[in-house]
Amino acid sequence: MTEHNSTLVQQGFTHEIRVGWGDCDPARIAYTGRLPAFALEAIDAWWEHHLGGDGWYQMELDRGTGTPFVHMSIDFRSPVTPRHRLICEVWPSALGSKSVTFRVNARQNEELCFEGRFVCVFISPESFTAKPAPKDYRQVIEANLGPE
Amino acid sequence: MTEHNSTLVQQGFTHEIRVGWGDCDPARIAYTGRLPAFALEAIDAWWEHHLGGDGWYQMELDRGTGTPFVHMSIDFRSPVTPRHRLICEVWPSALGSKSVTFRVNARQNEELCFEGRFVCVFISPESFTAKPAPKDYRQVIEANLGPE
Amino acid sequence: MTEHNSTLVQQGFTHEIRVGWGDCDPARIAYTGRLPAFALEAIDAWWEHHLGGDGWYQMELDRGTGTPFVHMSIDFRSPVTPRHRLICEVWPSALGSKSVTFRVNARQNEELCFEGRFVCVFISPESFTAKPAPKDYRQVIEANLGPE
Amino acid sequence: MTEHNSTLVQQGFTHEIRVGWGDCDPARIAYTGRLPAFALEAIDAWWEHHLGGDGWYQMELDRGTGTPFVHMSIDFRSPVTPRHRLICEVWPSALGSKSVTFRVNARQNEELCFEGRFVCVFISPESFTAKPAPKDYRQVIEANLGPE
Repeated sequence: MTEHNSTLVQQGFTHEIRVGWGDCDPARIAYTGRLPAFALEAIDAWWEHHLGGDGWYQMELDRGTGTPFVHMSIDFRSPVTPRHRLICEVWPSALGSKSVTFRVNARQNEELCFEGRFVCVFISPESFTAKPAPKDYRQVIEANLGPE
Repeated sequence: MTEHNSTLVQQGFTHEIRVGWGDCDPARIAYTGRLPAFALEAIDAWWEHHLGGDGWYQMELDRGTGTPFVHMSIDFRSPVTPRHRLICEVWPSALGSKSVTFRVNARQNEELCFEGRFVCVFISPESFTAKPAPKDYRQVIEANLGPE
Repeated sequence: MTEHNSTLVQQGFTHEIRVGWGDCDPARIAYTGRLPAFALEAIDAWWEHHLGGDGWYQMELDRGTGTPFVHMSIDFRSPVTPRHRLICEVWPSALGSKSVTFRVNARQNEELCFEGRFVCVFISPESFTAKPAPKDYRQVIEANLGPE
Repeated sequence: MTEHNSTLVQQGFTHEIRVGWGDCDPARIAYTGRLPAFALEAIDAWWEHHLGGDGWYQMELDRGTGTPFVHMSIDFRSPVTPRHRLICEVWPSALGSKSVTFRVNARQNEELCFEGRFVCVFISPESFTAKPAPKDYRQVIEANLGPE
């Protein structure tokens, strides 16, 4: 299992973000308030990549299961700037009966800029109540589970 | 100390945010990516209130000490919507030699929507290196320290 | 009519925005991409004030008539900074059979920072098709019509 | 000239934007307040492409000439959604002694979603005063001038 996971992580999904002038604050680095949004975009892109082009929008509106967040924690290691693209490595690190945990490691020029942990629950959009993960969601999570 | 703190928290600083249409996503609740930015705005407003009108902008550009974030963690308890103002209670909960921790509890209609913990370091903007808190920063933090 | 309007404008609706560190770019002024969003928030607040607390969110979801934008034009006169609150004066300047034009003048410390013109249409949210303004919308627009 | 321009436009620069869940509002289309920011990002990317990787950030901080906006006008033709990438065609349409006009046409699935006109001035960042375009800026503008 460990061996399998480490292989997966080496081939892991990454999402590239163009950091621009408008993302930066007067300290001339990307504003802290933008960084969680970058991580979220990367998780949205992870789903899109693994569900045949369907991200959160299609998951909620077409597939009938949303994945709202119940927790996020982020450690900021190094400033993000427009001088390099931000490469966000994303992988699911835990799958519970009604929740999934994602990890995001964001790097610029090979340096770790921030790393985060994000917990989502599966819900029915109409009732906003938790439910088990649908089979197709569960399959792509299990196939890509990486280290906690 | 406990008694003193609980008194302070009862009189604690709150910052009100108008949640609007543009803050909401297709689930018709405020987008998760907006919520950390709301909490940050509330912390910026906390400084502004306690430093005679000077928030992060003046702290960095006029007073010569910035307070970038090294950590944030947020638990999302209940959806945020435009149907009520978001009342963000902010207090410093720990003061280290070169860092300060803030707590933010955000409520709508008396219900807790999210709660977060945010760790900042004091830095010289020119060098982006950590330094001890200036005396005026330290004073307002110590005078408002609340429970962890 | 002119006299009436000028009276109305003197008593005109204003919406105050707290400009913060996170709104600013490396030039240490509010990022241009934030300014249209400020104007939109002010128009949303105009409706909220005039429709008994109902802004775009309630107009679309509860009242059954949305008001999407078909045009905006903005002249940027002077930089916006966190050193003053941004006071956005909002008034409707024209009412067509299926559209309404809003003007927004945004000032800091009495100086005009930007001025914009925004054209919205009335629509049924289910079909996204244009329709005449509902009577209650029309009434508050007509009662507050100001100069073009 | 017309012939030359039309050739240029056919080979024109485009910038692709991933529209996601977080860009959308409760009407389930990209929020109007996000669209000007998309257009701005596309203009920033235009510079980056034509100045050897230097966008607004490097232009202002390294090259010593910023290009703030004095005007924008946008016509919104069709809703933007996450169902397709947003392809932003960008070209300079006029070059004055101290200003440049950009056009942005944004399409999804070949349909025009919005089109805008943006006027920038060249400035010295230290003084925030207008100045003539530097030679290198002028060259890439002139080489890519398209129809108004």
